[in-house]
Formats: sequence, C-alpha cells, structure tokens
Amino acid sequence: MRAMNTLEIACNALATIGRECHARGWVPATAGNFSARLDNARILMTRSGRHKGHLDSGDFMRLDSLGQPLDEGTPSAEAGLHLSLYRRWPEVGCVLHTHSPRATVLSRRRGKQIALAGYEVLKAFDGIQTHEAEVTLPVFDNDQDIPRLGARVNAWLDRHSMPPGYLIRGHGLYTWGRDIAAAERHLEALEFLFECELLANR
Amino acid sequence: MRAMNTLEIACNALATIGRECHARGWVPATAGNFSARLDNARILMTRSGRHKGHLDSGDFMRLDSLGQPLDEGTPSAEAGLHLSLYRRWPEVGCVLHTHSPRATVLSRRRGKQIALAGYEVLKAFDGIQTHEAEVTLPVFDNDQDIPRLGARVNAWLDRHSMPPGYLIRGHGLYTWGRDIAAAERHLEALEFLFECELLANR
Amino acid sequence: MRAMNTLEIACNALATIGRECHARGWVPATAGNFSARLDNARILMTRSGRHKGHLDSGDFMRLDSLGQPLDEGTPSAEAGLHLSLYRRWPEVGCVLHTHSPRATVLSRRRGKQIALAGYEVLKAFDGIQTHEAEVTLPVFDNDQDIPRLGARVNAWLDRHSMPPGYLIRGHGLYTWGRDIAAAERHLEALEFLFECELLANR
Amino acid sequence: MRAMNTLEIACNALATIGRECHARGWVPATAGNFSARLDNARILMTRSGRHKGHLDSGDFMRLDSLGQPLDEGTPSAEAGLHLSLYRRWPEVGCVLHTHSPRATVLSRRRGKQIALAGYEVLKAFDGIQTHEAEVTLPVFDNDQDIPRLGARVNAWLDRHSMPPGYLIRGHGLYTWGRDIAAAERHLEALEFLFECELLANR
Repeated sequence: MRAMNTLEIACNALATIGRECHARGWVPATAGNFSARLDNARILMTRSGRHKGHLDSGDFMRLDSLGQPLDEGTPSAEAGLHLSLYRRWPEVGCVLHTHSPRATVLSRRRGKQIALAGYEVLKAFDGIQTHEAEVTLPVFDNDQDIPRLGARVNAWLDRHSMPPGYLIRGHGLYTWGRDIAAAERHLEALEFLFECELLANR
Repeated sequence: MRAMNTLEIACNALATIGRECHARGWVPATAGNFSARLDNARILMTRSGRHKGHLDSGDFMRLDSLGQPLDEGTPSAEAGLHLSLYRRWPEVGCVLHTHSPRATVLSRRRGKQIALAGYEVLKAFDGIQTHEAEVTLPVFDNDQDIPRLGARVNAWLDRHSMPPGYLIRGHGLYTWGRDIAAAERHLEALEFLFECELLANR
Repeated sequence: MRAMNTLEIACNALATIGRECHARGWVPATAGNFSARLDNARILMTRSGRHKGHLDSGDFMRLDSLGQPLDEGTPSAEAGLHLSLYRRWPEVGCVLHTHSPRATVLSRRRGKQIALAGYEVLKAFDGIQTHEAEVTLPVFDNDQDIPRLGARVNAWLDRHSMPPGYLIRGHGLYTWGRDIAAAERHLEALEFLFECELLANR
Repeated sequence: MRAMNTLEIACNALATIGRECHARGWVPATAGNFSARLDNARILMTRSGRHKGHLDSGDFMRLDSLGQPLDEGTPSAEAGLHLSLYRRWPEVGCVLHTHSPRATVLSRRRGKQIALAGYEVLKAFDGIQTHEAEVTLPVFDNDQDIPRLGARVNAWLDRHSMPPGYLIRGHGLYTWGRDIAAAERHLEALEFLFECELLANR
C-alpha cells in the first residue's frame, strides 16, 4: 500500500524528525535531506541548504516524479537519489538521508558492505522475524556527480533485494520506509546498530 | 507491599520514562516495552509496535494476570516475560524492558552473567547497604519463542535470589521494582553501571 | 564574602542544576546530593533518596550548621560531608555532589589523586590565572561510615590548600563554590576535564 | 557582502547558539565567547565570565572596531582575537569561540595543524565543492597574553588563505562566517569532523 501524506502533516512530521536528528548530532551544518511521497505524482522535498534542525514549511518544496519543481526554488542537490527510490519501489512513502559521525566513520572503513547480524533490533526491518538474520548494507564510494552516483546505486539495487538502507562513503546514510514513521524506525534501528558496532569494535 | 497504580497515573509515568529513555537512545525504533501492575488482577502493558518515545494513553492496554487482554488490541509480543515476573513476585509493581546500545554490546560478549562490584550506586538496589557488594546479572541467549525463553528465565530465577534485572543477548535489559519510581531507579542504576563497565574496559 | 541565598531562589537554582545534571547522566538513580548556605546558621540540603532530575521545594530541608534538622524528615545520608565543608570555609556558599560515569571510572583507577594540567579551563577555578597550572584532585577510598570518611577528608584538607573538589572512589565528585553559580561552574569544568582525560587515554 | 545584524536579532541568535552548545557540552563552565558584526563600526560581544548556556541581552555589549567599549562593562578577555578577524576580513559577520572536549583533546595532540580530508561535510565551507578536498586547521599554542597570541595567529593568516577556523591548544576552537547562520554551520561541521576523527582513531 502506497503511503499518502497531506502536505501539512508531512512537513510537521519531517520537521520533528529533523529536530530529533539535530539533537542527536545526525544532521550537522546543513547536512541531510528528507522527503515524503504526497501522492502518485508529487514528492515533498527539503530545499537546498536548509538546516535540518530548524525546519518549517517554507523549507520544503514539491517535485513531480521526474524531479521537476512544482514550487519555486531549488531542491536538495541529492533529490535525484530520493526520486530514484520512489520510482523503483511504489510502496516507499518516505526517504531520510542523515549524516551522523558513526555512519560516516563506519562508511570510511574499507569494504563495500557492512554486515549486521544477531541483533534483536533487526526485526525493525520489514520481512525479518528473528535476530538470527544477517542484514547487509551496501557502501558506495562518494561522488559529486549525483546522476552517476545514482546509476551505481541503481545497478546494485537491480541485482539485490531491498536493503534497509545504504551508505555513501564519508557522506552518510539513506534509508526509507512505507511511511514517515517506518522510515524513522529504520533510521533509529540503523543508527543504533552503528553505535553497537563501534562500541563493540573498540 | 504491593504497588497499586491508577490507570492515568501509570500511563503518564510510563510515558515520561519513555520520553527520557528515547532522549538517551535506550528505546530505538519501537524497541522496549513497559508495564505496571494496576491491582491484584490487572496489568497495564504497552501495545505491540508503538514508539516508546511518544507514548500516550492509547498506546497502553490492560491484561489479566494470565495475559488475557481486557482491552481490544495486541499487547507487546514480550508480555509473557513481564507477566511471569509479576506472578513470581507479588511485591513487583512495574517492569521496564529497554534496549540500549551499551546493554546490547555487553550482552553480546561471551558469558552467562555480568558481575558488578565496588560501586556506590549498587545501593540503589533493595537490600544492598554498601559498595562492598557484588551484583550478578544473568545473560540469557535470545529466542523468538517467548514461552521457551520465559521458561529458561524462570528456571534460573527458581535457583537464585532476585537479581536487579537480567539481559537477553543482543536484545536488552529487563528490570523491575516495587513501583514505577523504583523500576526507573533500577534502570538508571544499571545503565550507569553498563556505561562505567564499557568506559573502563576501553 | 559569604554567599546568602533566599530559600526559594536556592531551591529553584539547585533544581535547575539537577535537571541539567540528569540530562547529562551525572545523577543516575537517586545518586548525588546538593546543598546551599542560606545564612550563618542554616544550610539547605536535599532530602534522602530523592531523584535529582525532578527536584521541587518539597525535596529540600534545612539543617543548622551542626547538622540538626530544622524541618521534619531525613536529610541526605552524606549531609555530614557537606556540613564539614561549610564549617571549614566560611566563604563556601554551595556544595554539589554528583555521580557521573566518567568521575566514577576515573576514581576507580589506581592512585590517590588525579592531576590536571595545561588546560585553559583550569582558569574556572579561583586563583588560577593561566593554563600553565596543575590542579590536583584527591581521591578517597569509599566508606559507608560517613563520619569516618569525613575524618579522612578533613585530615587531607588540613594539610593542603583548597582543591577544586574531591573524588570518592566508585562514588563520584564533591565540588563547591562561593555561590551556586560558582559551584556549577566548578562542576562543569571538572566534568569537562574528566571527559578530556578519558578521551585522551583511549 | 558584509552581514548586518540588528542588535536584538543578533542577541537572540547568539543566545540560541549558546543554549545548543551548552546542551552539547561545547561551552563548559563559562568558557567560550561569541560575537557578531552589527554594522561597519560596531561589534556585539559577550561580556566576560557569562555562562554561554543562559545568555540574555544583558550578557552582551558593543565594541567599536578597535575594541573600545561602547557600553559599560568588561568584554570577554579574548575580544581582541575576534576583532582581529573582523578587521582582516570585511565579509566576516560572526565569530564563535567554543571549547568542546573533542576540540580540546585533538588540539593537545602533537602537531601544528589538523588535516581533514575526504568528508562530504567539507562542502559546508565556502569555496569547497567536493569531498575530494583537504582542509587544514592550524593549531596555535595557548598563551594568556592575548595580543601576543593574536600576533601569532595573524602572522599565520598573513601567509595562508582563509581556513575554516583555528584551534588553540588545550583551549578550543575559533570559527566564523559571513553571518551568524554561516558561523554556526562551520561550527557544527568542524565539531562533526572532530568527532569523526576521534571515533576513527580509537
């Protein structure tokens, strides 16, 4: 079932997530960007360069599903990565990109993926019923050419089942969900797992 | 003396604990579950899948002492572990299950118990009058079969005096107390001790 | 100059400090106790067993300078350590005892003192004008016999100039100041220094 | 373009930054000082010894560009370091000096500079368009003689292009920006980078 969000509810819910992320240090400077699907034809997206800890309705704009602006202004430079996820999976209703120190540090370690296994909290992800599971998060090298980066992400997603999110090296986390609450749940679960991995590897 | 909580007071007190736990990262995603004894026959329990950082009265329901719902809806999947503690100890008035990174990381290290010794804060636990004490927390392997997990917990508790709580591996902490304030005190003391143990073991 | 605090201002200021300390994890469970000098004859002291994150005026009581209660109820079990500091130094207007994980972990390492040198923030302590200073914090072994512990503290203080505070092993920090604001400044400076020492020693 | 701030807006914005910095532990005790350019002739500066977590308009005063007070009272002892930055770069509208444990610990390690490379968040700094960049932060030895310290800072800045900030050893961070929001963005980016560097170096 595709999630539908009214404009006002979506702005408020994403602004609340932004304040919580800011309090936890997950959206430093003006890093991160958030979006939600409003209906079949429209995506709500944070504007470029806004501080995610102090969002109000003026910090959002609407795009069509090809990324054409429906309001004046400039969307986040990474809007293409969001739109690509909405096009791929009709059931996705919200995409959150955050930029925590832990995600950044883990993503800069060598390797093309991070495996997370044996945690009860893996059950926060759809389709996982037991801690006796292993989830793999792909890590993509960073690229300022967003279409090229998006093509690499898409090539990976074409060959794998839906992961709970992906990391861009030195750049942070993308995660998503059926609706805003599900995306927030996935974000909290992944950041929890990153904290556990760093605490355990001391 | 058995603690009695009115419905409204219990909901408010558990919601406040939820907000504080969320701010500290102890209930990520929708992890954790809370309960309180309302009277001889009824337990208040968080419903399944609710975010513990944003609880209101609609996120709770009542069960009888055998776990039968007294309100419509689905209680937390781990309600059986709560009920088992209320049946064992009539003096227990509140059970808190949290899911912090520190509890998770400590519980994943090898071993069937965690010993905590020499800390002044051990006096937060009933019956301990001095820091020259050692408290042992059992660590049980995780299991998605809650009755089977509960049976293992019960077998251990049958052979030992009441611990201040127990850990489930990769899954978090169960603690309890005479009333909600006592359970919160035990939770804060145990999380403090986990933080000290991890800081000291760097 | 001896600091004088009116009852209401002192309760409010200490309750605010309690909330901030709780948010930072420095007063877990019901650990910690706070006091302020009201006038030549009376000390305001937190009652025994109250949670320092939720203090209101009912959580305080007055003692005379010998520790005799001027209100009904039971003061903190460690009131004697506070009173001893007020009697020793007439210029002290506030004493704060906190119980952070960092202070606890540092105090449990071997040694009878902690030396802090080369930090700009040392200038937060009276009489220190430069970072090119070294401050020594004594660490006393814990003891449930408060008069005996107090006698050991006093014997040390008799032979040394006023330190910015002292640690009790596995138990936490005592610090103080001319008034409540000065004691809070010393608390924040010492906790900052403990955090730096632990970060540097990884 | 030189940023102009009205007095009231600047006081409120700097007080908000102070509260956020305090919540994060970046301005312990009364450490740190903040300033903003009001117009060509006047700088708003925090007064000496005020707690940066509880600033109101009475905690600020105005100076002319040579540092002469335009209001009664004593400005921060480090006002000279702020003024020197405003005189050097007419485009600077705000200077923030903070004092976090991480900045302190990194600055106390050997070396005269800290290199930060490969992070997406480097794009928070003016003129940086890609993560494939390296930013160098100079680290100056601390000195209680502020004019002498300022002269060393100036000698370095004379020979280099504008860095995103500088560290004083054991003392903290100076950063700045076109306006208050830009300076806050630089502060958050640098503290994020310090956290990453310390997490990675465990």
